[in-house]
Amino acid sequence: MKTQLQHKIDNKTKPPGSLGRLEEIALQIGLIQNTLSPEIKNPIMLVFAADHGIADEKVSPYPKEVTWQMVMNFVAGGAAINVFCKQNRISLKVIDAGVDYDFPAELPIVNAKIARGTRNMLHQPAMTLEECQTALDKGREFVMKEVQHGCNTIGFGEMGIGNTSPSSLLMHRFLNLPIEECTGAGAGMIGDKLDYKTSVLKKVSEKHNPSTPLEILATFGGLEIAMMTGAFLEAHQQGMIILVDGFIATASLLTACQFEPNVKKNAVFCHTSNEKGHRILLEHFNAKPVLDLGMRLGEGTGAAVALPVIQSALAFINEMASFDDAGVAKE
Amino acid sequence: MKTQLQHKIDNKTKPPGSLGRLEEIALQIGLIQNTLSPEIKNPIMLVFAADHGIADEKVSPYPKEVTWQMVMNFVAGGAAINVFCKQNRISLKVIDAGVDYDFPAELPIVNAKIARGTRNMLHQPAMTLEECQTALDKGREFVMKEVQHGCNTIGFGEMGIGNTSPSSLLMHRFLNLPIEECTGAGAGMIGDKLDYKTSVLKKVSEKHNPSTPLEILATFGGLEIAMMTGAFLEAHQQGMIILVDGFIATASLLTACQFEPNVKKNAVFCHTSNEKGHRILLEHFNAKPVLDLGMRLGEGTGAAVALPVIQSALAFINEMASFDDAGVAKE
Repeated sequence: MKTQLQHKIDNKTKPPGSLGRLEEIALQIGLIQNTLSPEIKNPIMLVFAADHGIADEKVSPYPKEVTWQMVMNFVAGGAAINVFCKQNRISLKVIDAGVDYDFPAELPIVNAKIARGTRNMLHQPAMTLEECQTALDKGREFVMKEVQHGCNTIGFGEMGIGNTSPSSLLMHRFLNLPIEECTGAGAGMIGDKLDYKTSVLKKVSEKHNPSTPLEILATFGGLEIAMMTGAFLEAHQQGMIILVDGFIATASLLTACQFEPNVKKNAVFCHTSNEKGHRILLEHFNAKPVLDLGMRLGEGTGAAVALPVIQSALAFINEMASFDDAGVAKE
Repeated sequence: MKTQLQHKIDNKTKPPGSLGRLEEIALQIGLIQNTLSPEIKNPIMLVFAADHGIADEKVSPYPKEVTWQMVMNFVAGGAAINVFCKQNRISLKVIDAGVDYDFPAELPIVNAKIARGTRNMLHQPAMTLEECQTALDKGREFVMKEVQHGCNTIGFGEMGIGNTSPSSLLMHRFLNLPIEECTGAGAGMIGDKLDYKTSVLKKVSEKHNPSTPLEILATFGGLEIAMMTGAFLEAHQQGMIILVDGFIATASLLTACQFEPNVKKNAVFCHTSNEKGHRILLEHFNAKPVLDLGMRLGEGTGAAVALPVIQSALAFINEMASFDDAGVAKE
């Protein structure tokens, strides 16, 4: 299939290789779908929201209440992810994985609340193993449901004040990197505030010594991160195109790869976040993301903005004429 | 207006600056249109095609006939630019600025043929001053026509076997850079072939000594490049958003800026081409293009693929809720 796909790509009416990354994306998606005519069907963005006990340590400049307030903003259609999903015709589902707030039942929020946020990992593991496993399982279930509705392309977003902290810790543990290299400004911790955040995460790391991937995820993760990790695993198993957003999504992918390294084959890296650890994470995956716009918002926004460019890759492989079709002389 | 636009951007429900380049693009387009609610209306791509006398020196791996064959491919809808314009709902017009071929009159090709290609600039100037001025004027006319049809956003593409050579020479002259730094592989001149191409362009440069921008453009340019230069000038005068494609389009912009330096204010740089000289040209303009996908196809493809990302910038500034609207706590 790889040879046939490359042959199809090289025979389009253009100098060989002249569509750059678009050619590589067309090849990757052709291989994921095992077809010469790959397509994106019913793309969806699942946004997982949860609170974090570590937010009590003021590792974010925003108060914890912003998590539920932003979920309400998603429901009202006013957040960045709403706007970009609407623009690019991506369905959007908001999943409460563990927000510390009781949402009115009539709102279109999928209730998958496992707890009212994680515990403060400065003092105890963020989740029990059971909570963590439940989150993984629920993440898988949500993806399976979308497959049944004919979706073959899925992106994952997140909302959770404080959630760059668990992401940094997971990266630190799984890649064996100093916490300083994994910790960035998040929503705005710069200068002294970043030093403080780093020192908190250092203490968290020193306190615990989990060993298996599940233990590490339970200790340092978040409910939305664990649910997203399960979602990555299932999306790979279902042969889907996975749109990878920024730092937190890539840390979840890294976690999923501890369980099943092949998940990365389905991952289309959508953007390079301005969050400090993201470039190193991307290098680990040898990834060349579609966009590099200095975005660092999360919610799945990088993935949503990148989708049309990925669609361009499929448009050219499916719709462009070949040299023979068009009667154009080759080199 | 700048302060008001920045205030609007900063009050959207996101950490300040977290949409990166999208925020800068929203600001730029707001300033171009002098409004807090900028919009893209009836975007169009004008593709200018012409032949080049210098192609006789084998500075491209493709035969000259590919110019008219690709124009026929545009008309049939099979080229990359057709596919991307269709995907992103960009109107497409193909303009014969000087192809060495008689197209059947019934085809939807705008006939603006000034000559059957330029002269071989190894021996004489590519155009007369009159031909060059006519091309500039016609480029302006085509843009004016689109403005009358309610278009406020325009991209320029090109097709012309050999047209990286005039672009390199214009860059070399206008930026006073050695020809080696301005000359790249084009459609596939690598290794010894690139050395050969560079040596030809060096001889061309040594042969002529024009001084005014019009003389330089007439001596080293192309009919499609001159027409595109006129189009840039008019699009700026009309206050349009100009989608700047790759190497040849940016060399045309550089030429337009010799006549009117403010043209660059309207330029949204869409992508970084893999063509060698493009990065240096972009640095000259202090540009941070929307995409960097290693594309080097021309035709306007980089601009067409980038449009949805630019539309994302306008979507967020027009449609996202502010902190006050959404009842979300600020930092």
